[in-house]
Amino acid sequence: MARYKVILAYDGTHFQGFQRQAGARTVQAEVEKALRSLGWGEESLLSSGRTDTGVHASGQVIAFDLDWRHSLEALRNALNARLPEDVAAKQVEEVPGDFHPRFNAIERAYLYRIIVAETRDPLRERYAWRLWPPLEAPEALQSAAQALCGTHDFSAFGTPPVEGGSTLRHIYQAEWRENGDEWLFEVRGNAFLYHMVRRMVWAQVQVGLNRLSLADFLEAVQQARPLPPGLAPAHGLVLTGVRYAENRQEAKNWMRSLL
Amino acid sequence: MARYKVILAYDGTHFQGFQRQAGARTVQAEVEKALRSLGWGEESLLSSGRTDTGVHASGQVIAFDLDWRHSLEALRNALNARLPEDVAAKQVEEVPGDFHPRFNAIERAYLYRIIVAETRDPLRERYAWRLWPPLEAPEALQSAAQALCGTHDFSAFGTPPVEGGSTLRHIYQAEWRENGDEWLFEVRGNAFLYHMVRRMVWAQVQVGLNRLSLADFLEAVQQARPLPPGLAPAHGLVLTGVRYAENRQEAKNWMRSLL
Repeated sequence: MARYKVILAYDGTHFQGFQRQAGARTVQAEVEKALRSLGWGEESLLSSGRTDTGVHASGQVIAFDLDWRHSLEALRNALNARLPEDVAAKQVEEVPGDFHPRFNAIERAYLYRIIVAETRDPLRERYAWRLWPPLEAPEALQSAAQALCGTHDFSAFGTPPVEGGSTLRHIYQAEWRENGDEWLFEVRGNAFLYHMVRRMVWAQVQVGLNRLSLADFLEAVQQARPLPPGLAPAHGLVLTGVRYAENRQEAKNWMRSLL
Repeated sequence: MARYKVILAYDGTHFQGFQRQAGARTVQAEVEKALRSLGWGEESLLSSGRTDTGVHASGQVIAFDLDWRHSLEALRNALNARLPEDVAAKQVEEVPGDFHPRFNAIERAYLYRIIVAETRDPLRERYAWRLWPPLEAPEALQSAAQALCGTHDFSAFGTPPVEGGSTLRHIYQAEWRENGDEWLFEVRGNAFLYHMVRRMVWAQVQVGLNRLSLADFLEAVQQARPLPPGLAPAHGLVLTGVRYAENRQEAKNWMRSLL
């Protein structure tokens, strides 16, 4: 028996999110079904965290214990042969028995993609939020993103996974990049509140559309002043990766060092 | 009554190609259904040409005659409101009554996308051919592409739309571009035989994999020597655009000037 860490990619379009729930098609349930056919008998796999209905991933991380006598490559191939077309195991490695994809994580990275187009775009809208009219103040996006960096109480942007839990999060990088008629938002942080990336994107876009003042946005970040409700669509968001410390203690020290 | 030219985009995944056929879900049938609900009563719309099952388009061109009393923008929006999610009208313009999207066309442009990856990639495979193992001789791709340019008898690469029709075609540009783990093939020509782009891509990839010699490829292009059978998958291909001469005579002159 050993513990395995797997990097998963999935197209979230036809999933009701990552986390297993009765009666719903979820990524976790599909992966657990594939694992069971390889002799896995645990209650639940471990993950870096859930993703919402419709959110995609190119770098979700899961872990599980399995009695496997063949190579890592053979395990990856056996999983891919059993997983549906919209989920794939990109990489498999053996990790220490106390590795936990959520508690050892020191960084999560997300990418949000916007296309600015007046009409529907069937070849791109599966993985992007189509925005129209165009941004009036694109330069304000960069100022807004800049303000997100650092340690803040992000309660205006989401709710903690546990009721009453901390709403402090540390953002390492938040950046908008223009590419033709696309706007790409990359954000890396130690962890994210529920809905936090989609709220960040939505609020920044409101600033770019001159529907929310930059000053109100800054107060939401710096003083946790509430924002109007609103959420960028799930299908523009991809969880691109999760980074790890060697062990839980190192991860804890890392978190403390940020505060 | 006036003639309208429309640029269409579609995701080919769930279509049995462009052309109407009984009992099949096709792009043409969906667009004609939308047009009928706007009072259109012709037998058939006109198009720049068909695309195979599974092939995508960002720049397919169609035309039809319609009695429409509102703006072009209103026509575009009315079409988009009636078309399914995987087809969209990107642009609508009024054209002279003798405009024909196939006969007036002087250039078609296609893009073929390959990703080089060992495992399935759920976020990209809808619009790309996943190739593994990697190319052994990527530089041979450029030589092969270069050889495609100019006027050649392309009978090794496809069949003409009409039995016994000419297999001469003029390729203006054929180019491979590497982008991270992707290979993009752009090709522009006056017209293409049935399956021609997919055969071109397949044969060039065989050269890059050292499974077909560059000499055999060059003989197929320069002397129409047959190639082994093989076709790159439809889902990597996008019809990106069609260019037009002002009228049919100008288009004919253009064609003649190439030969």
